[in-house]
This record gives sequence, C-alpha cells and structure tokens, in this order.
Amino acid sequence: MSAEIGFVGLGSMGLPMATNLAAAGYRLAVYNRTAAKADPLVAAGARLAPSAGDAAAPGGVVISMLADDAALDSVTLGENGLARKLAPGGIHVSMSTVAPATSRRLARYHAECGSVYVGVPVFGRPEAARAKKLWICASGPAAAREKIRPVLDAMGQAVFDFGDDPGAAHVVKLAGNFLIAANIELMAEAFAMVEKSGVDRKAAAEMLVTSLFACPVFQIYGRSVAAKRYPLGISMPLGFKDLDLVVKTATEVKSPMPAANLVRDRMLSALANGRESMDWAALAIGVLEDAGLPIE
Amino acid sequence: MSAEIGFVGLGSMGLPMATNLAAAGYRLAVYNRTAAKADPLVAAGARLAPSAGDAAAPGGVVISMLADDAALDSVTLGENGLARKLAPGGIHVSMSTVAPATSRRLARYHAECGSVYVGVPVFGRPEAARAKKLWICASGPAAAREKIRPVLDAMGQAVFDFGDDPGAAHVVKLAGNFLIAANIELMAEAFAMVEKSGVDRKAAAEMLVTSLFACPVFQIYGRSVAAKRYPLGISMPLGFKDLDLVVKTATEVKSPMPAANLVRDRMLSALANGRESMDWAALAIGVLEDAGLPIE
Amino acid sequence: MSAEIGFVGLGSMGLPMATNLAAAGYRLAVYNRTAAKADPLVAAGARLAPSAGDAAAPGGVVISMLADDAALDSVTLGENGLARKLAPGGIHVSMSTVAPATSRRLARYHAECGSVYVGVPVFGRPEAARAKKLWICASGPAAAREKIRPVLDAMGQAVFDFGDDPGAAHVVKLAGNFLIAANIELMAEAFAMVEKSGVDRKAAAEMLVTSLFACPVFQIYGRSVAAKRYPLGISMPLGFKDLDLVVKTATEVKSPMPAANLVRDRMLSALANGRESMDWAALAIGVLEDAGLPIE
Amino acid sequence: MSAEIGFVGLGSMGLPMATNLAAAGYRLAVYNRTAAKADPLVAAGARLAPSAGDAAAPGGVVISMLADDAALDSVTLGENGLARKLAPGGIHVSMSTVAPATSRRLARYHAECGSVYVGVPVFGRPEAARAKKLWICASGPAAAREKIRPVLDAMGQAVFDFGDDPGAAHVVKLAGNFLIAANIELMAEAFAMVEKSGVDRKAAAEMLVTSLFACPVFQIYGRSVAAKRYPLGISMPLGFKDLDLVVKTATEVKSPMPAANLVRDRMLSALANGRESMDWAALAIGVLEDAGLPIE
Repeated sequence: MSAEIGFVGLGSMGLPMATNLAAAGYRLAVYNRTAAKADPLVAAGARLAPSAGDAAAPGGVVISMLADDAALDSVTLGENGLARKLAPGGIHVSMSTVAPATSRRLARYHAECGSVYVGVPVFGRPEAARAKKLWICASGPAAAREKIRPVLDAMGQAVFDFGDDPGAAHVVKLAGNFLIAANIELMAEAFAMVEKSGVDRKAAAEMLVTSLFACPVFQIYGRSVAAKRYPLGISMPLGFKDLDLVVKTATEVKSPMPAANLVRDRMLSALANGRESMDWAALAIGVLEDAGLPIE
Repeated sequence: MSAEIGFVGLGSMGLPMATNLAAAGYRLAVYNRTAAKADPLVAAGARLAPSAGDAAAPGGVVISMLADDAALDSVTLGENGLARKLAPGGIHVSMSTVAPATSRRLARYHAECGSVYVGVPVFGRPEAARAKKLWICASGPAAAREKIRPVLDAMGQAVFDFGDDPGAAHVVKLAGNFLIAANIELMAEAFAMVEKSGVDRKAAAEMLVTSLFACPVFQIYGRSVAAKRYPLGISMPLGFKDLDLVVKTATEVKSPMPAANLVRDRMLSALANGRESMDWAALAIGVLEDAGLPIE
Repeated sequence: MSAEIGFVGLGSMGLPMATNLAAAGYRLAVYNRTAAKADPLVAAGARLAPSAGDAAAPGGVVISMLADDAALDSVTLGENGLARKLAPGGIHVSMSTVAPATSRRLARYHAECGSVYVGVPVFGRPEAARAKKLWICASGPAAAREKIRPVLDAMGQAVFDFGDDPGAAHVVKLAGNFLIAANIELMAEAFAMVEKSGVDRKAAAEMLVTSLFACPVFQIYGRSVAAKRYPLGISMPLGFKDLDLVVKTATEVKSPMPAANLVRDRMLSALANGRESMDWAALAIGVLEDAGLPIE
Repeated sequence: MSAEIGFVGLGSMGLPMATNLAAAGYRLAVYNRTAAKADPLVAAGARLAPSAGDAAAPGGVVISMLADDAALDSVTLGENGLARKLAPGGIHVSMSTVAPATSRRLARYHAECGSVYVGVPVFGRPEAARAKKLWICASGPAAAREKIRPVLDAMGQAVFDFGDDPGAAHVVKLAGNFLIAANIELMAEAFAMVEKSGVDRKAAAEMLVTSLFACPVFQIYGRSVAAKRYPLGISMPLGFKDLDLVVKTATEVKSPMPAANLVRDRMLSALANGRESMDWAALAIGVLEDAGLPIE
C-alpha cells in the first residue's frame, strides 16, 4: 500500500494517530479545519490538503477522526465530500465515535457514490494513541476490512472484527464508552462513601486498582477520581456527546439503560455548572457535592 | 505460631480457606453450625469444636467467616462467645462481609472482654479461595494485625492494611463489592443494547474483557452476563445483603449512592421473582426483561 | 369571527375539539389524512378540505392538532403548507404537543411567510375534550392570542397565557405531561408496596385520591393503576414521545431530570415488551413485574 | 367518653391535635419530654403527667404522637410503659408515622400486656392539625376502632378504615408520604426545566396547581418550590425518616421503588449539605444546584 493515504481531523486523537502512520512509512495527505494543527505532519513530509475532499483520491484510502456526527457528515457528503472523491472503489475508514445509525446511513451513501465505508472506532485516550496502544473495532465489507488491516495495525495494539454491518463496531464502541464513564460514577460514589467513613480514599482506590480492578481504565480513572484531579483527555462536552449517543442508540432499539441515564445526567449537570473545559472524569465533582464533601 | 487456630464458619468460602490453613501446617479447631461440613477437615486432622466458643482459647486466634452480621453476633457475644473465650489477649480475625458499624461495635465489645477484634474481609469467589488467590483487607490494632499476618498470607495473594479503625477494612470491602455488583448491571445494560442492535453480545464482551477491561471481575462476570449463564458463586440473598449494607453504610455517613440503589433494587426484584438460589449475576435477567429480550 | 376556521387533524383529540367548535357556531374547513374521520363533521355542515393547505385562507385562522413534530412540519412547511396559505396575516393555532424548539422554529418560518404562529397546547384526555373541559396554554404574539381567544374558549374551560415566546406554552405543556406520567409511576410503586404489604390497593388508592390527592389526574390514573386496568386515552407511543420531548428539552437547556428518565425508561420497556397499543398508564405493569406481582 | 384521655407527644403536630381535643370537651392528661410545651394545655385545664405512663389509666385511652419509632418504643414498652399502664382493656391510639413492622410488633406487645394497640397515622401539616383538617387512617381491632372514633373525629376531617392489621394504616401513610415527597422532586425538576427554558416558573406552577393539580399538596408544595421558599412544616430529618421507612418497608416486602430511592437520596444530600433545619421541600435545592440555577 505505497499510495498516499488521506487523514482528515487532527485533534488530540487524530494527530498522534496520523503521526504513527507517518512513522510507519505511509505517505499522508492531511486535512484539518484549523490548518495549523497539521504543521508537524507537514514538516515531516505530509501533503496539506486544502479541503477534506482533496485528501481523497479515486480508489484510495482516507481516514477520518472527527468530533461528532455533524463534522463527519460535513466532510463526507456532497459533491466534494469524501464519499464521491473516493469513488470508484476507495475506502473511507471512519474512526470517529458516532451513532451506529449515522454509520449505517453513511455506508449506504458511499455505496450509492461507488465508494466503501468502514466503521472503525477506537478505544484509548490521547496518550494511548501516541503509544500505538489503541484498541480498534472494525465492521463493514470484509474485503475493505482486509485491505486496511495494515493501516490499522500501524495505529493500535489490536483490531477486533464485528462483521459486515458498518454500525456494529460503533455499537461496541458506545458500549465500551458507557462502561468507562459509568465506572467513573461508580468510583466517585464508592470513594465518597469511603471518605465520609473516615477511610483514606486514595488508599482504598490503590487497593482496588491493583487487585480486583487491575486494568488501565480503573488505574487511570480510579486514581484520578480518588485524588480529585482530572487531567484533560476527553472533554466534558465530548463525553456527554458519547453518553447521549448511548442513550439515543438504546432508545432506537428499545433497550432501557438506567445507569446510562444516571451518568448522562451527571455530565449534563457538570455542563450546567460550567465544567465544559474539564475532563469527563470531573463528573465525579457532582458526587462529591451531593455528599457535602470538599471538591478538591 | 504453632498453637491451634480456631475457624468458625465452613461455608463455600470458609471451607477452602480453612483447608489452605491446614495445608500450610496450621492445627485447626473448626466449628460449623452444620457439623458435617467439617468432615473433610476433621478427616485431615482438625479438631471438631462442639461450639464456636470451644474453638477459642485464651490468648489464641480464631477466624470467623459467616453469612451475615447476625451470625457473627451470635458466635461472638455472650458468656460462651468468642470475645470472652479469647480473653485475655486473644485475637478474633473477623473475615465475614459485615457492616463497618457492626465491626466497630464488636471491637468495643472485645476490648471490654479483654480480647482483640480485627476486621479482615476478603475479596474473591470460592474458586479464588481454593486457589489461595484471595485479596485481603485488614484493619484494627497494629500489633494484632502484625501477629496474624502469616495466617492471612496462607489464605490469600496479598494483604492490604487500612489502619487502626476496625471498620475501615469493611468499608473498603463494601466499596469493592459495590463496584463488582454495579458492573454486572452495567454489562447487562451494555450487552442488551448490543444484542438489540443486532451485534453478537458474546463477541462484544470478549473484545471488552480482553482489552480495556482485562481484569478478572470483568472476565468472570462479563462472560457470564454475555452468555446469560450464571454459575453459582455468591447467592442472590448474600449479594443483596452486601448491597443493602452498602446503602445502609452510605446512609449513616450521609453519602448518596444512586448507582448502589439501582443495583440493590435490581437484586430486590430478582428476589421478588423467585431467583433466591441463583448467583447474584442473575440480576442481569431483570435487564433482559426490561428490554424484552430472551432471558436465556 | 364569522369567517370559516380551518381544522387540521381529527384524531381522538381533534375530532371532539372540532365538534365543539361546530357546536359553538363556527363554520369549519376540516382536513384529516384519513378523510373518513371527518364524516361526522361534514355531515354537520363542515367543508372537507382536500389538503391541509386547502383548509387555510389568507388572513384566516387554522387550528392544527396532530400526533407529533413531523406531522406538524408536514402540514405547515412548503408551498402548500399552512404558513404560506395563511399569509398575509393569518394565524396558525398550533395545539399539538410538540417540542418548544419546533414551535420556535415554526414561528420564525411563519414570520418569514407573512403569517403568525401561536403555540396553544392543551391538557386533557379525549373525554375532557368532548366535555369542553380542556385546560389551554397559549403563547405567541399578543394580538394573535387576543384574536383567537373566543375560539379557544369554545374548546376548553380556561386559557392560561405565557407571553410572547411561542415555545413557552409548549414548555409548560411538557412540564405538565411529565408530572402526570411520573405520578403514574409513583402510584404504581406505592400501590405495589401496599399490595405486597397485604393491604387492599384499591382501598388505599381511594383514600388518597379523595383526600390529599383529590384532583382529576389522581382520580383517573390512581384508580386505573390500583385496578390494574388501563382504558385507552393516550397511547404508549404517544406518551413515550411526550416524555422523550421532556428529556430532549431538558437536555437542550441543561437541566437534569432523573425522574423523567425513570418514567421514560419505564415506557421504553413497555414498548420493548409489546405494549404499543395500551394506554400510557400501562407503564405500571413494569412496576408490578419488578415486584413479582400479578399484572392483572 | 367522659373519662380523661392521655396525650403523649406535644410537638408541632401533637400540640394542635391535643388542643382540638380539649376544645371538643375532652379532659386531658398530657406528657411531653420537654414539659414546657404542655403549658398552654395545662393553662386550659389539662393535667400534666410526670411520665408517659402516668398519662395512662387501666381501661383508658392514650394517644401518642411522636417523632419516630424509637420514641414510640420508649413510651410504650416496659414496666411503666403505656402498654402495661393501659391494661386491662385500655387503648393506645398510635398516631406517629412509624414502620408498619413497628406497629405490628407493638400490637403484639400490647396484646401480651392485656391492652390494645390501634395504628392511626394522620396526613396534614401543622396548620391542618390546627384547623382540624387532618386526614386520618386507622387499622387494628374493630371494637377499639369503633370506640375511639369520636376522639378521632375531634381531630380531623375524615377517618379511613383499613381493617384489622395494625400495620395497614401505617402502610397507607407511608404510601401517601412517599407520593407527597416525590411530587416535591417532580415539581422541582419540572420548574427547573421551565426556568432554564426562559419561562416564568411561578406562572407555570400557578397554571398547574389551579387546573390539573388543583389539590392542596400541589398548591402548598408547588408554590413553595416555584418560589424557592420552604416554610417549615416537616423538617428535613423527619422527612428523611419517612422516606427511609418507605424504602425499608418496601424492602421487607420485596417491592422495588426507584422513585422512592431518588427522593430519599435527594434528602440525604440535603442533610449532608447542612439543611437539617429546613422544611423537607428544600430537597428542591439539590435539583436547582444540579441545573446550575440560583437557589433563591
């Protein structure tokens, strides 16, 4: 795959992912709404595309990593959108966290345009992206999935296949994000009880995340919540968007998720109280306030 | 520590724990309400005590591992209870999951009797007890904790200290049990959405528990919930008791725990629907029913 | 106001409302997607309009009473929609339960077209509509509100004004529907506890709805829930739509509503379990099932 | 019934109730832990009893109106308690809000002592007590209920019978208190959404409580919540106690009540945040805080 690969969306996730592709020897055509974000990649040899569509070539491969469904629509649809520019036969590797319904709709649109859409969301915070430690889920046409496999391997530590439905990988992504966010809430509740019982919340957290819950999600967020410090990885508005997608998707398929509502409300309250620029783990502040505990 | 150690309570947890002590060379005096449970230990050389108090000697060590606060009270209090029989100077190693308030009350009672109470709850299902893989939390007087350390090491893979408050270790235990039970609910909700979205729930679970959530709690319960099979480890009534203790303890210290209430209610509903003899993971059935999914 | 009035939407609410207008002496031009619904009105002298737009005349008044936002859009927008057909100066009396945001958007659209939109949602089940007992909320341009007042008085027992914002009356309508639906949940929970305590649930309900809660909402739904009978007034899908609008509107303004989520989930579960054709009060069945009670 | 009646507990409810009995011509023997509270009654001719037991005579009638189950136990049990002092044949009219289980236990105790216990909880705030507008629920032995009927009529506007089970009336009382408290939460949520939507919360409340919800509970608490003013009637600790009893009773009979948990948590948070001396309607402050609204 010596041809140029397009990369659209160079935010806190997209930039390290594209950087890893460049490091793996891929030639890149990059596009970002704020062009300056592309500077390090351009300095390393990438071509700066003046529009998303310009990052695509007929029969080529373009990766998109964007903030939300609307942003993905805006680069995909229309005369100069990725779906048409990739035709015939090109592949859109859609790595943003979007609604499964959006993914399915865009897959139909690509098919009408003569190109292919693959849903390939990832798990991992920016530091995982940098370390090539992303967990990658993929679903869509099998031939396309096979073809892009080396590209994915250059960005993550494992790829999981979920078959032909282009929305399937996004469903799993939402399920995973729900589990992460909900565990922030759970740990916030648990450590509030611990602190109010006169027990050291950091010691309790340390015990739990090095024994029963010795996995990265708990170590990262457990220590963050226990210390009442929330280093920015996923912003509150993005986190809220994810939980809102979870609830919307669950609603479409008629599957009640009370815990998802609880967490979504906690984030909504964080947004209502001016915490837009904090990490989503700061939903824990609401738990502290409910318990009358100091928030720092 | 060549003296005999008492062991009171030979249920699904106590029996393998006592067995490991015997295997480590400790001489045991064992007591169980249903004496037949002690047969394998007696066959291996343990002394069968006719009552809990008879398993204790002045200045000795007795471990208790019982179903609930009332059972612990019944072996501890009174003329023939452990607290008096251990005096002067003996140590009661209280390993049941009980309320921190119960632990503190019994610690005061032991002090009045001239013996010592140490709160030493454990994490792990029966198979972990057998494999000497329990995680052990301990709190109470420092000298007593130091003295019993070799005994604890013979039953688990690590011991975590939480200081002098005899209730502290129980607070951490409740926090941990809450996190486990609540994750059963979370996974049940997540996999219901996954299944109703037309995605393979076992494949989604497998991805999650081998990547982001690659720790035993998720592997055991994630696979159980995904498969809609609930092998018995912790029975529903015992699980409910734990969550009820969580809510009661949180109430005492005025720390609201909405997710704990959600899970507690899910178990209460399981009990209301005749699932007393199932594993606590069967709370997931309620989630399936709410979503109109097949429960098997 | 001797001119003809248009009436669009002759469902279980619209038909009795239009009938009352006819009885009050108004000449009507009526439209319904399924034309046969208009037969009784046509028999009584109303003109059958072949389309929604044909029920409108420049400078006239048209009332719409439709199932949801999409249906309202479809009769309002476009070349033959109500907004253009009423221009210049005509008034669209929008009585459906829709999102405040929809109301505001349509008000802007009418203004661009040269007509006027007034948001006028109503409270009351079909029997209240027949009895001219509707409670009517109105907001939008003051002159228009004043002009349509006699028309509203012919359909309800009182009109409440909420100022110029055309979405305001819809906000109040959603608040009210939330209170009604949530009280169905509350009574279902209360009467389940009563029944499981061995107390007669109908006697308890009767006491409460003739003393503390002696108002129609409680009398209608309290007796329905207590008797486990749910005569059809508002269908489950329509009820769910309302609660979904509540949650969406609350989300837009960043105001968490945990009780609304609870009730919305209860209805979602009812839909997931095949209760689409039941009254929204049948959300109570989920409460009975959670408690292991007979559902009839 | 010209004999003296005992009245134990002269708090904000008991005092006006006893005052109404005196006004109706009953001779009273009154007892309150803080004796000064009895001054107005004594000034009007009541006898001041030096202990609760001294307010009782064999075969007589004593009314108790106390803060909680423990207070009721303390005046009822023991050598000098009401149960023994009323024997043989006297009647204890127990009007406090207590657990149905407490009521049943005390009824058995009275029977053993040779006296009779009737559960007679009331609905109404202090101003309703003063105005003789209480709603009274009664259950217990039929003959006793019949005998005390005139006494009850002197304190309330209606008496509802719930049969022989002395706990039944308390179950209904808890159900009613749950409905009241939960509606405070509902209105707080509704009016927060209303305010954040730019609509006048008092106007919305006024519309609702004079139409659909035109009953005292809504008028009192709806206006209170809308105005963000919470005149003291039922204190937060007492209100919490009631919701805690609701949840405990529901737990005993295995009937999940998610809305009760929500409200209970809201009150627990109020207590955790220093609102012990406020009316229970101040639970609404937590809703305002979650929405980022001014709390006054």
